[in-house]
Amino acid sequence: MDFGTVKRYLEKEGKEDEPTKIDRLPYKFFDPFIIHGLRTDLVEPGRILCSFNVPARLLNTANTLHGGAIASLIDLVGSAVILTAGAPTTGVSVEINVSYLDAALLNEEIEIEAKALRVGKAIAVVAVELRKKGTGKIIAQGRHTKYLPVTSKL
Amino acid sequence: MDFGTVKRYLEKEGKEDEPTKIDRLPYKFFDPFIIHGLRTDLVEPGRILCSFNVPARLLNTANTLHGGAIASLIDLVGSAVILTAGAPTTGVSVEINVSYLDAALLNEEIEIEAKALRVGKAIAVVAVELRKKGTGKIIAQGRHTKYLPVTSKL
Amino acid sequence: MDFGTVKRYLEKEGKEDEPTKIDRLPYKFFDPFIIHGLRTDLVEPGRILCSFNVPARLLNTANTLHGGAIASLIDLVGSAVILTAGAPTTGVSVEINVSYLDAALLNEEIEIEAKALRVGKAIAVVAVELRKKGTGKIIAQGRHTKYLPVTSKL
Amino acid sequence: MDFGTVKRYLEKEGKEDEPTKIDRLPYKFFDPFIIHGLRTDLVEPGRILCSFNVPARLLNTANTLHGGAIASLIDLVGSAVILTAGAPTTGVSVEINVSYLDAALLNEEIEIEAKALRVGKAIAVVAVELRKKGTGKIIAQGRHTKYLPVTSKL
Repeated sequence: MDFGTVKRYLEKEGKEDEPTKIDRLPYKFFDPFIIHGLRTDLVEPGRILCSFNVPARLLNTANTLHGGAIASLIDLVGSAVILTAGAPTTGVSVEINVSYLDAALLNEEIEIEAKALRVGKAIAVVAVELRKKGTGKIIAQGRHTKYLPVTSKL
Repeated sequence: MDFGTVKRYLEKEGKEDEPTKIDRLPYKFFDPFIIHGLRTDLVEPGRILCSFNVPARLLNTANTLHGGAIASLIDLVGSAVILTAGAPTTGVSVEINVSYLDAALLNEEIEIEAKALRVGKAIAVVAVELRKKGTGKIIAQGRHTKYLPVTSKL
Repeated sequence: MDFGTVKRYLEKEGKEDEPTKIDRLPYKFFDPFIIHGLRTDLVEPGRILCSFNVPARLLNTANTLHGGAIASLIDLVGSAVILTAGAPTTGVSVEINVSYLDAALLNEEIEIEAKALRVGKAIAVVAVELRKKGTGKIIAQGRHTKYLPVTSKL
Repeated sequence: MDFGTVKRYLEKEGKEDEPTKIDRLPYKFFDPFIIHGLRTDLVEPGRILCSFNVPARLLNTANTLHGGAIASLIDLVGSAVILTAGAPTTGVSVEINVSYLDAALLNEEIEIEAKALRVGKAIAVVAVELRKKGTGKIIAQGRHTKYLPVTSKL
């Protein structure tokens, strides 16, 4: 595999005017880009349940929900569940891990469940699972560890 | 933390016409969205070195490179390095993990180094590190495990 | 921290005649050393539930169940659950990860639950949780990924 | 796979008088059991290099260094390297992960290298690699995250 092939693989620019479009995307576009379309179905202390239809924009080259998008959904819904467990902030990411178990296809309806495993004074650990809504089959399971910096209480 | 607050946290729609813009994004936009601007500096068997300037679109609410974007960069550059080690495909994701060690700021120049730890007949494992280009300080380090399905050789 | 201090920290030999005792331990003593005392309470396809009283031998210097012992229990019970899901072997370890959430004390009764998340033709992924039996509080949660080599069926 | 088979798999008692021997093992035997025979070759700030000959006691049923023993070595040498980076304690385990890349055989000489990726006020992250001494081939690579509780400085 020569330099040119890898360069082309990595520096794929999208079609036509995509590079220009991407350059014009606004600050902090990442969160809405990932999460647009997510519906929050249930919130209780230490647990969140959401629904999501796999959108075209988040597909990978194999036409399934991108592994990076799955990791990002775990990051985002996992951060939110820390708030439901009483922490004042969602904290700073320390570690994330994801096992990919099944593919999610375009327009497939999935559910995302986040559970707080531990929300302590300094460390929060959450588990997040993505499942196919029809069958309950697990698409991915991950854990996210965050550091909760001490916040002054003025 | 009540339902409404978590719902607003998770269903943030971006400003003004962002929701409409996001709905119009094309198929498989994820890869170019993440990787646009990446420069491939070095490719050798089992190793890739890239440069990247942290773009505004990939910032999180704390104005640093988003953890989900870091995981996605590790996924993408990690997949490419499998090709340099002689595998016919980049395979299917089995597991990814990331430790977040330092923040990367807007426009900061970072380097991304991917190394193939093992590329076997069925399993490939790569390590990817993001560093500040000036000081070499590590921003994140992760590993990505992929399954290489047997491909028929017609 | 000088060389001597770290050397003493790492090369702790145990008391009195322990070094000699350890040298005399038999082949493949690791499994029985970890698992001695484990009781299998429930086995169903894709799920195992065990009980375990934290033994003195597996304590760390803080007098709680050693993190390495917890990882080893996850490895062992996680491997067994692959068999219950119909795989012919427990496979070869690819990856393991563990989040440590709470301490387990000497003689504390814990339960260990292993679930098969996916047992495919080539890859098996299991999740294992250690909980305090009285309260259900989670001590540790981990996932174990194994490769199932193709076995000829003569 | 019926209950009895899994029970026998998990509750393997070792041969002859092993169960009795195991019951008699002393408090906190885990550390010396794993680490006996380790030689510390190099200690510098943020880095430790050790040598180890794979002992019979740490073999698995496939006659290679047990995955649980590898995780335990990563835990132990990884904790020691935190001390070399100036932390007053080795902290409390938050997360560990290991990729298994190659088998280590009985009496094989391996080297274990631990590097501190970050030792902050509250969080320490280290990377540990096990390699075959002759060829440098990687046996396993892992990261260990620890929480460093604030210690009063009397």
